[in-house]
Amino acid sequence: MSVPARTREAASTLQLCRIMGPNDANIVGNVHGGIILKMIEEAGCIVSTRHCNTQNGDRGVAALVRVEKTEFLSPVFIGEVTHVTAEITYTSKHSLEVQVHVMAENILTGAKKLANKAALWYVPFSLQNVEKIMEVPPIKYATAEQEEEGKKRYEAQKLERLETKARLEEVVPPLPNPERHTIGFSQSTLIHLVGPSDCTLHDYVQGGVTMKLMDEVAGIVAARHCNSNIVTASVDAINFHRKIKKGSVVTVTGRFTFVSNKSMEIEVFVDAASLMEAEKGKYRAVSAFFTFISLDKHNRPQPVPPLKFNGQEEERRAEEGKTRYLHSKAKRLAERERLIADADQS
Amino acid sequence: MSVPARTREAASTLQLCRIMGPNDANIVGNVHGGIILKMIEEAGCIVSTRHCNTQNGDRGVAALVRVEKTEFLSPVFIGEVTHVTAEITYTSKHSLEVQVHVMAENILTGAKKLANKAALWYVPFSLQNVEKIMEVPPIKYATAEQEEEGKKRYEAQKLERLETKARLEEVVPPLPNPERHTIGFSQSTLIHLVGPSDCTLHDYVQGGVTMKLMDEVAGIVAARHCNSNIVTASVDAINFHRKIKKGSVVTVTGRFTFVSNKSMEIEVFVDAASLMEAEKGKYRAVSAFFTFISLDKHNRPQPVPPLKFNGQEEERRAEEGKTRYLHSKAKRLAERERLIADADQS
Amino acid sequence: MSVPARTREAASTLQLCRIMGPNDANIVGNVHGGIILKMIEEAGCIVSTRHCNTQNGDRGVAALVRVEKTEFLSPVFIGEVTHVTAEITYTSKHSLEVQVHVMAENILTGAKKLANKAALWYVPFSLQNVEKIMEVPPIKYATAEQEEEGKKRYEAQKLERLETKARLEEVVPPLPNPERHTIGFSQSTLIHLVGPSDCTLHDYVQGGVTMKLMDEVAGIVAARHCNSNIVTASVDAINFHRKIKKGSVVTVTGRFTFVSNKSMEIEVFVDAASLMEAEKGKYRAVSAFFTFISLDKHNRPQPVPPLKFNGQEEERRAEEGKTRYLHSKAKRLAERERLIADADQS
Repeated sequence: MSVPARTREAASTLQLCRIMGPNDANIVGNVHGGIILKMIEEAGCIVSTRHCNTQNGDRGVAALVRVEKTEFLSPVFIGEVTHVTAEITYTSKHSLEVQVHVMAENILTGAKKLANKAALWYVPFSLQNVEKIMEVPPIKYATAEQEEEGKKRYEAQKLERLETKARLEEVVPPLPNPERHTIGFSQSTLIHLVGPSDCTLHDYVQGGVTMKLMDEVAGIVAARHCNSNIVTASVDAINFHRKIKKGSVVTVTGRFTFVSNKSMEIEVFVDAASLMEAEKGKYRAVSAFFTFISLDKHNRPQPVPPLKFNGQEEERRAEEGKTRYLHSKAKRLAERERLIADADQS
Repeated sequence: MSVPARTREAASTLQLCRIMGPNDANIVGNVHGGIILKMIEEAGCIVSTRHCNTQNGDRGVAALVRVEKTEFLSPVFIGEVTHVTAEITYTSKHSLEVQVHVMAENILTGAKKLANKAALWYVPFSLQNVEKIMEVPPIKYATAEQEEEGKKRYEAQKLERLETKARLEEVVPPLPNPERHTIGFSQSTLIHLVGPSDCTLHDYVQGGVTMKLMDEVAGIVAARHCNSNIVTASVDAINFHRKIKKGSVVTVTGRFTFVSNKSMEIEVFVDAASLMEAEKGKYRAVSAFFTFISLDKHNRPQPVPPLKFNGQEEERRAEEGKTRYLHSKAKRLAERERLIADADQS
Repeated sequence: MSVPARTREAASTLQLCRIMGPNDANIVGNVHGGIILKMIEEAGCIVSTRHCNTQNGDRGVAALVRVEKTEFLSPVFIGEVTHVTAEITYTSKHSLEVQVHVMAENILTGAKKLANKAALWYVPFSLQNVEKIMEVPPIKYATAEQEEEGKKRYEAQKLERLETKARLEEVVPPLPNPERHTIGFSQSTLIHLVGPSDCTLHDYVQGGVTMKLMDEVAGIVAARHCNSNIVTASVDAINFHRKIKKGSVVTVTGRFTFVSNKSMEIEVFVDAASLMEAEKGKYRAVSAFFTFISLDKHNRPQPVPPLKFNGQEEERRAEEGKTRYLHSKAKRLAERERLIADADQS
């Protein structure tokens, strides 16, 4: 994903910016990854909702259905200004791809750095009938190649969305008095009552609000394990399978799957239940893997304590986590080599 | 406790007011009891911190050590303006009593109602050395009788604070797949990472922030049990035994103790742990009993489903809850009769 | 003030945007003027702080010293996206003028409207020494005329800032049981403890935070008088004479000065006091005049009840308010005629 060129109509891009305050960061000043994710999704939602309402007819709101794997490239600090630029980069009949990049600017020194790049998929729902999916007006592409590449990304994510279901396993509460560095020791749960400011454009929780809660729980799990300053390093692709309505209680649980020398993978489950219609019961709305790293006093990554496993189930999940870790490491290396090769050629 | 007369110096009184917004209320518009408790404590903290810093010398912050039992007399709604008046009504060598009353005003109709009355005890700590308790400058009393009555309240709460320890029992997570209307079914836990805005004047959580979290969990427990609109009816006396520092994770758990025909008693436990100094472990910071009622569509109290008990332990706790319920009911009746008798005499 | 042309370097402009949520608005959905003022000031602060730190050397933060009279041209509603564009339009040796315009966009219909235009003056203070004013790097002007016009505005505001002191009169609490529609009846005070999120870049309250509090109080005063949906119509020029430090208590009081047929002028006073250094006492930080209008169910202005005066002092203040009202009405008419004349010529 490259920084989008300004070739398309202005209506399909949007820039948000905001100065980071103490409420956005932990006590050593690192802005929470969840705050960045929430801003990314707000920008994506505005640009895609606007796009789908350009034509007369049905009014609708774009709902987040998927976020591709995203990496936090540089830490952001209190007092910096975060610029979030969102652009619609592909449209299918019923969905939009929005690419977002986040720059952090130190307004005291003028230094700027790329903090994050992300790609989000939205589907527009009618405001009159929330079950009805609207048609998406097509965008114009600068080149035929751009359209083709977008189509490839569209097919790939569609396949993955159909194949992947939310992991439905029940999260069992940890045993009492767990030993330190076990998975049960750091497992954490928060509950949140969905209020009006979580649901800006309709009566459903914004995807960014959910991601912020997930990052919050994952961060507590990570800090409980390594007792140090921790930051979000990356988030695996997230599929939003089911909507969460205003007035629901969401239960967000995080637990360790795998620890490498310097990174921690935490799986996060979001369950929702209506307080008023209890007979409908609790359902799994979304699940995802967050990767955190531990930082020393100079903001450099430091080793994390290994996990202690209890039982085969935990070991199996760690094996799967290791596979994801090695896969993503190999991919990063391949990309770096490609960049070096490109540089040599030019 | 009578509405404080304006006989004392202005420095020892304070009025806060704020218009209630959607974030302060549930989806049917009832302002959360926790929001009111937080405002009450903010007013109490300001008036007592100000009082203790009038003289030159050590600078300090008043920390909440106790809230007397308080009742929510009328519901407050979105759009109303809440006026919180705090007055210092007694000073001992090392503590202050602040009496607070809360009026809710509908600015569209002009209607006003008394929403809450509360009495809080503060102890001033030095900002240089958080273990050092400062001396409290004495206030002037309008009459000798006022001073004497204050002294009685001071002795009574001191005794109770010394006698009462935070209930230290471990809160066991509920069994999987609990049956509806059991205690395990509605038991709820939230975690919260203490951020800068939770700690306005020093690096410790404001008492009002803790009370707001407790009310939030208790409300979710109550709603999960009766699946209806619920509101806080009263809070038993709370003693704040131990401070909670910025950067801690607090775990707030609520579970049912007792249900009468139209009220629900929920016990709430607050445990705190430092993320960075994990070797210090988790400690019980505070515990309290909240009473909620269930409202129908016309905002009238309605019956709540009875509790299903599992085991003697739960039945024992319900017995204790019933004793508290009957005791407080008797007290309310006695007070009503006293008021009627007073009215007859005059 | 015209919408700034994009002739100057990109670093001297900035665009903020944000979707308006329920917390930003009153219960009928009108976004509070104070929210708009806070966004305007945030954009102004970022663009001018950034500009003053472009050169190596001392680091500093731009502090708001003055806002010119500003009018709310169209109401903004929940769900709309507010775009705030700030541009540096003049620099003197020690101050900057920032012109800001606010567009509100309905992303469901595509409709856009100009919501506000404002001009703000900033002075950069050193972060090392808060008493030291930094030098402002000059901007480049597209034409000599632009520079000259900027200089005129600079001289005019400087003169006015020197002449105008914050109105220092003591705000007397109203008598008990005031009659409806008197000035004492609607007079309102709120108190706010300055927390970390009020002070983003240094330990002093952001000007926008103060303006938001002032608008909040003025809105309560207006609603108490006319018991209807009210919105901010305009704010007279505000001079920020004295800074307010973190940990202070600010007391914001609003009271009526004048009522025309369809508008209400409310004077707002902001007093600050340190809680820790109570012996330093309270000081007047800023004062300003806010004008509100009352809206009927169709969002159209409606007549407001006349004020009842008690005493010559109140009548004198109303006379002054009437002068301001007539002056600003005449100015608006003159501008409109000028626009019509311009249109005729072209």
